[in-house]
Amino acid sequence: MQLREKADAGGVDKARLVEALTRVLPAGALMFEREALRPYECDGLTAFRQLPLVVALPTTEEEVAGVLKACHELGVPVVARGAGTGLSGGALPHPDGVLLSLARFTRILRLDPHARTAVVQPGVRNLAISEAAAPYDLYYAPDPSSQIACTIGGNVAENAGGVHCLKYGLTVHNVMRVRGLTIEGEAVEFGSEAPDAPGCDLLAVMIGSEGMLAVVTEVTVRLTPKPQFAQCVLAAFDDVVRAGEAVAAIIAAGIIPAGLEMMDQPATAAVEQFVHAGYPLDAKAILLCESDGTPEEVAEEIGRMRAVLAASGATDIRVSHDEAERLKFWAGRKAAFPAAGRLSPDYYCMDGTIPRKHVGPLLEAIQGMEQKYGLRCINVFHAGDGNMHPLILFDANQAGELERAEAFGAEILELCVALGGTVTGEHGVGIEKINQMCSQFSRAELEMFERVKAAFDPAGLLNPGKVIPTLNRCAEYGRLRVSGGRIPHPELPRF
Amino acid sequence: MQLREKADAGGVDKARLVEALTRVLPAGALMFEREALRPYECDGLTAFRQLPLVVALPTTEEEVAGVLKACHELGVPVVARGAGTGLSGGALPHPDGVLLSLARFTRILRLDPHARTAVVQPGVRNLAISEAAAPYDLYYAPDPSSQIACTIGGNVAENAGGVHCLKYGLTVHNVMRVRGLTIEGEAVEFGSEAPDAPGCDLLAVMIGSEGMLAVVTEVTVRLTPKPQFAQCVLAAFDDVVRAGEAVAAIIAAGIIPAGLEMMDQPATAAVEQFVHAGYPLDAKAILLCESDGTPEEVAEEIGRMRAVLAASGATDIRVSHDEAERLKFWAGRKAAFPAAGRLSPDYYCMDGTIPRKHVGPLLEAIQGMEQKYGLRCINVFHAGDGNMHPLILFDANQAGELERAEAFGAEILELCVALGGTVTGEHGVGIEKINQMCSQFSRAELEMFERVKAAFDPAGLLNPGKVIPTLNRCAEYGRLRVSGGRIPHPELPRF
Repeated sequence: MQLREKADAGGVDKARLVEALTRVLPAGALMFEREALRPYECDGLTAFRQLPLVVALPTTEEEVAGVLKACHELGVPVVARGAGTGLSGGALPHPDGVLLSLARFTRILRLDPHARTAVVQPGVRNLAISEAAAPYDLYYAPDPSSQIACTIGGNVAENAGGVHCLKYGLTVHNVMRVRGLTIEGEAVEFGSEAPDAPGCDLLAVMIGSEGMLAVVTEVTVRLTPKPQFAQCVLAAFDDVVRAGEAVAAIIAAGIIPAGLEMMDQPATAAVEQFVHAGYPLDAKAILLCESDGTPEEVAEEIGRMRAVLAASGATDIRVSHDEAERLKFWAGRKAAFPAAGRLSPDYYCMDGTIPRKHVGPLLEAIQGMEQKYGLRCINVFHAGDGNMHPLILFDANQAGELERAEAFGAEILELCVALGGTVTGEHGVGIEKINQMCSQFSRAELEMFERVKAAFDPAGLLNPGKVIPTLNRCAEYGRLRVSGGRIPHPELPRF
Repeated sequence: MQLREKADAGGVDKARLVEALTRVLPAGALMFEREALRPYECDGLTAFRQLPLVVALPTTEEEVAGVLKACHELGVPVVARGAGTGLSGGALPHPDGVLLSLARFTRILRLDPHARTAVVQPGVRNLAISEAAAPYDLYYAPDPSSQIACTIGGNVAENAGGVHCLKYGLTVHNVMRVRGLTIEGEAVEFGSEAPDAPGCDLLAVMIGSEGMLAVVTEVTVRLTPKPQFAQCVLAAFDDVVRAGEAVAAIIAAGIIPAGLEMMDQPATAAVEQFVHAGYPLDAKAILLCESDGTPEEVAEEIGRMRAVLAASGATDIRVSHDEAERLKFWAGRKAAFPAAGRLSPDYYCMDGTIPRKHVGPLLEAIQGMEQKYGLRCINVFHAGDGNMHPLILFDANQAGELERAEAFGAEILELCVALGGTVTGEHGVGIEKINQMCSQFSRAELEMFERVKAAFDPAGLLNPGKVIPTLNRCAEYGRLRVSGGRIPHPELPRF
């Protein structure tokens, strides 16, 4: 009965699909009973939930190829999934499709301490790579806050970032080679262990492509030497705008901190009560500014950081005296999201990125929006990258609050675009920001995305309905940019 | 008469083309007389020469759009060209096409010292950007040896590198935004002044696409603070393989030099006689290893470099005592190519890139090939990047030497691929390495390139016949890789 309903509903014959997948998957690698599908109904963006038709849990590349070939033959959508920690709904299942979990691809295939590379399967956890490299005093630099759980395959899909990315780069800067399977089940490899690659840079295209182009089955990552020493400066400001200007001043001074994070007063207040990081609660905003390297390098850089922060109007500057204090400074930052969970039944985390010089003005604008939407917003973010993570607090059980939170978030992201920024720094577009893509790109640019997607997946079966909005959708949304429109830079001095 | 011949020859009606272009270009911006075309018949790869049908020299983006629209309408091929310093024939004209020179796009539109960015037109010379940024103690880091002449547009097309790229990245790491025109004359912009971008990373695709996808009309580059201080270590080795191992050891020690270059004995002998850089002529190979930063950072890093080089068996280690000596060390390196010109009437410069650990073995293999082909090869290269530039010396007037040089070069590049490397580090594929693309990529991968190219340029009018080989060509060349074949890593320890 169930089967028929589905088939009628989605026009996909579930029975035929299950039969085809049973032929290519071993026992226990295919699930299609409602209760077994439930854990896969959403990723970290829990506001959106959808059961897939079936869940496939292959263990080998051959099995993945088998699943893809079968889906290609039957015209069935495929959504690949890592740990499901994504925050933009990129792994939201398709109602008539296969949810392809790479959770069983957990092997580290090779680790070469001399070349400082590791070849890993997509289901390996981000932190597990650093753990495996630790005996050689190496680690994998990109460190999303979900790094305990999130997988490298998901990191590749979203071009994940983290606190260290200001100095050490995003996923795209730390992945040297990706092997994947096309929807036809054919293997492709882009990148190598040597710098650059001939032809189009399809490695960079694969990274951040949110499962639209191919299913990643193997990743070669660059490993980074663990710094000998690190110290963290905590700077307090009596004004968020001034704190934002200090961020730009540090980078303008030629300093690239190992981390440069900002928290506003609501954020420090929220975490301090149960982390006791020692944050100055009277400060309107604090900056955490980290230096790492040899002791000599750190001493020299910390000195320059102090000077710039003082000149930028910091009201209080503290340098961690020992490793314990440094970790305490960071503990507050790391606990900010859980703390927000204690302030409010629900929160909505944005991910806009802007040129650093606009950090202050954007924070001011957000304060205005709090009044407009009648919702609180706390700010904890990768200030050095200009990667903002406003947390909009709301209660889904209060009528209209979710809608107001979404409108609030949309206005923030569109302001980011207007300021010359982007609608996502590290969380991806998924389904969450698909409307904002209309604000970000022109018709010609969106058509280009569509065609590049078609170059890999002509039938459009890989993660359909995500990332790239249809032009109709943009027309309805009414935000399509003038073709080839320029991002305005009115404030830049003419040369 | 001339016109007719051309038209018959190429199936393109030159008269009609000239008429159409005259409508969109001002007087003096269109050339079609043989003697006026001559200067455009080749780029830096002078072994290949071809006159275009016409040369267009627009001054505004609107004029470029007009030329592209006209060519699109008439189905005429377009080859964009910067300064023509490229070494892989990427700017070789099409006999039935338009050579589109961006030489008149020489304006620096904006320079923002605070955000450390510059917005420049494609015809701006690489070095001119650094000159404009100098008053703010900033510079543009990628420094190809042609930087006095080469343009940023060409740098984008080839993803140009240089001595500083080991520490500061290739063009793709230093360009934040590119604006270009499609063959339909429609403007597209990829990237922004904020990190990361939603959707596929088409900025990275544009960079290194060798004029196949769009014509770049504006580039936003990242500017880098000038280091306060720099010192260079000159290390001598009595064995090239040991010198190669020292390169890998420095990187493995977690040191990222501001430059790490290698020259073998024939190279030092060639330059020393007229540069007098003070190179030890008895050494089989020398390394130039640069450190930059604050005086404290440099002192500390130079110490670590010395230790690693000594432990790697360097027979002599010298550190530049002052700026004059540092520049003298580099003068020899910079003069290596001209010096090769004095050793032999012609030379052929390769551009393979390999994982660092294979530098030694590759140099050994090249010594064997010198015997096999009866030609000398001198080695001067970006050792830290594993980016080899073997210079094969030959005399084009000696029957068979050019062919032997080409076969020699092809064998080097294919060995690079076999070692897990690539056929080009910074010079691009152009027409020179199009056969080696068959060794580098599988059928599925080459088809993907073809489809991505078609996504931008469905009619295949932008720089046709370059970069991407047809599958027929590969079949004839007989080197098509097994689909999805893996690059072997036999020497890597299993984890």
